[in-house]
Amino acid sequence: MLVGKKYYLMSPGPTSVPPEVSLAEAQPIIHHRTPAYEEIFSEVNENLRYLFQTSRDVYTLASSGTGAMEAAVVNLLSAGDLALVVNAGKFGERWGKICKAYGVNTILLDVEWGDVPSPEMIAEKLKESPEIKVVFATLCETSTATLLPIKEIAEVVAKTDACLVVDAVSGMGVEEFKTDEWQVDVVAVGSQKGLMIPPGLGLITMSEKAWGLAAKSTLPKFYFSLAAAKKNLVDRQTAYTPAVSLIYALRQALEMMKKEGIENVWKRHQLLAQACQAGVKALGLEILSKSPANGVTAVVAPSEIDGKTIIKGYKEQGIIVAGGQDHLKNKIFRVAHMGYAGTFDVLTAIAALEMILAKSTYSFEKGAGIKAAEGVFLG
Amino acid sequence: MLVGKKYYLMSPGPTSVPPEVSLAEAQPIIHHRTPAYEEIFSEVNENLRYLFQTSRDVYTLASSGTGAMEAAVVNLLSAGDLALVVNAGKFGERWGKICKAYGVNTILLDVEWGDVPSPEMIAEKLKESPEIKVVFATLCETSTATLLPIKEIAEVVAKTDACLVVDAVSGMGVEEFKTDEWQVDVVAVGSQKGLMIPPGLGLITMSEKAWGLAAKSTLPKFYFSLAAAKKNLVDRQTAYTPAVSLIYALRQALEMMKKEGIENVWKRHQLLAQACQAGVKALGLEILSKSPANGVTAVVAPSEIDGKTIIKGYKEQGIIVAGGQDHLKNKIFRVAHMGYAGTFDVLTAIAALEMILAKSTYSFEKGAGIKAAEGVFLG
Repeated sequence: MLVGKKYYLMSPGPTSVPPEVSLAEAQPIIHHRTPAYEEIFSEVNENLRYLFQTSRDVYTLASSGTGAMEAAVVNLLSAGDLALVVNAGKFGERWGKICKAYGVNTILLDVEWGDVPSPEMIAEKLKESPEIKVVFATLCETSTATLLPIKEIAEVVAKTDACLVVDAVSGMGVEEFKTDEWQVDVVAVGSQKGLMIPPGLGLITMSEKAWGLAAKSTLPKFYFSLAAAKKNLVDRQTAYTPAVSLIYALRQALEMMKKEGIENVWKRHQLLAQACQAGVKALGLEILSKSPANGVTAVVAPSEIDGKTIIKGYKEQGIIVAGGQDHLKNKIFRVAHMGYAGTFDVLTAIAALEMILAKSTYSFEKGAGIKAAEGVFLG
Repeated sequence: MLVGKKYYLMSPGPTSVPPEVSLAEAQPIIHHRTPAYEEIFSEVNENLRYLFQTSRDVYTLASSGTGAMEAAVVNLLSAGDLALVVNAGKFGERWGKICKAYGVNTILLDVEWGDVPSPEMIAEKLKESPEIKVVFATLCETSTATLLPIKEIAEVVAKTDACLVVDAVSGMGVEEFKTDEWQVDVVAVGSQKGLMIPPGLGLITMSEKAWGLAAKSTLPKFYFSLAAAKKNLVDRQTAYTPAVSLIYALRQALEMMKKEGIENVWKRHQLLAQACQAGVKALGLEILSKSPANGVTAVVAPSEIDGKTIIKGYKEQGIIVAGGQDHLKNKIFRVAHMGYAGTFDVLTAIAALEMILAKSTYSFEKGAGIKAAEGVFLG
């Protein structure tokens, strides 16, 4: 916390947690091998199916989102198998790194950071190498604030024997996503983004096609064994001790999302993104991504003031935004409007940006950013 | 929660969480890649060294205690390696299962449930099979409420090339434990027992000898890579997103333990155990373990009333205790006095037991249990 300043967490994860969720998290711990806990957990599981838009089970793991990603790799594949990795940024890269750690061979479909692959590119790779067992992709590539066309990619992959595994860590509860309708085989999610709860839970769901692949997988697994998760879920339990307080938090957050309605959650994020983009553009700045995400906006820093200075300017005003990673370091800054975010969070971010720019030699029309963002909200 | 009843969580994990810790957990989430978080995390790491009684680093993982156990296996060993597993109950068994999942060969040193192995038995096994790379043991075998002689086992293992790995999940912060002085190579801990915080954090520390073994380990790992944890800790960070709210909780709990003083924490648990044992014995009941733990007491149900009925009797009074597992099912019940526990928790457990027994045909002197337990507290 910055002493004497209100604290605004506008990084793309962890995101800020609603007070109702924090209070739920602080409730007394009950034992997990009891009907009382099982009732809570069942409610969570039902609402997770709604969130994921799936009729399948969603497994909860006591881990970060990366743990859920690792679970996808070790449960589906064997050493020496071939996988296609859509590599459009830092989190695409992570799929490749996990595969490498487990001896899974990969074809990297490199996409320029901020750009997206066309479904045709994936179809072509699958045609070239029909032995590809899994296609790994990312719903929202957080490092570039880019939304990938998962629906269209899924259409391509569904026609083949390969399974599509999607990292929806920073997309679930933000972007339109229909697991069953789109035929996405595996979806891995973390708790600290659109779900509005603290980090520490990983979520994953598997299609029948994915279970078919899992039956042949020989990679070693214990903690992340989804067969164990599946077996225990029949008894409304997890294989190992669940993170009880985070389950309380998740129950509360899911209830809030259900009340809002998942379509409205998606629309709210879309509006926030449009307002943020309009505000930034009205200040004469450029959006990095060719396919901007709805939960986070990456802005190219102008030549007059670098990304690092902008982030520092935000911090001095009590606002935490993120910088660029790797070759985008100092070149961009990323403002999240993800999860527990509304109109005045975006207006705060734009107003703060105007005041940062006003202190630099960058030339722009003061108030233009807020005017444009308000315009979007006014419709 | 049982409606209209005060809820007493007396299971050996999760244990009840002090209100100060719950409130700490509910604090606003801050971003983990910031100096503000790094300051909190450094304080936690310093106090973890105090808790573990070690000068080495302690790594925190967003996982249950089983995750920390898996981390020990995958970081130290390679497929085909040989390990000795002290198998004195359910959690000893778990070491064997994790090893099996990763293709590590094991020699099981089977000990009757409730009994402990002698250090000589371990010395003998190590002499017979000098290729043993790791000895896996358990500080408190929760399934039988048994304390193993880790100090003596460590003396034996330290003389060999093998590393000693101890599951201290339900022993740390309860039982006397001196990582460095006793020369324990690896210690794996979970958050929801003696540490007084909710489940969801795994902790692990490694000796130089263990790092030597780790350098040769070829088992695949990513999420649980301790090399990655070590590398990130230099920058006061974790490899993947930490469970921020549980780190808040841990900070508060460690501060409370430090104020009490770790020796006093151990003594408090010893006194609670002695009082619980005295109370149970004064009611004519038998303690299962030949070496009772200080955090949990396993009591043999008398022939007049089975374990299941006793547990039900506790539950009707708002108290959650644990039953026996596997062949001890219905035969024992386990009352925890672990973590956030004091005099009147033990007296509550004994009083409740007296009232349960009074409703059965079991013959005993009413009030004798409380009298005996009070006698221990009076000294």
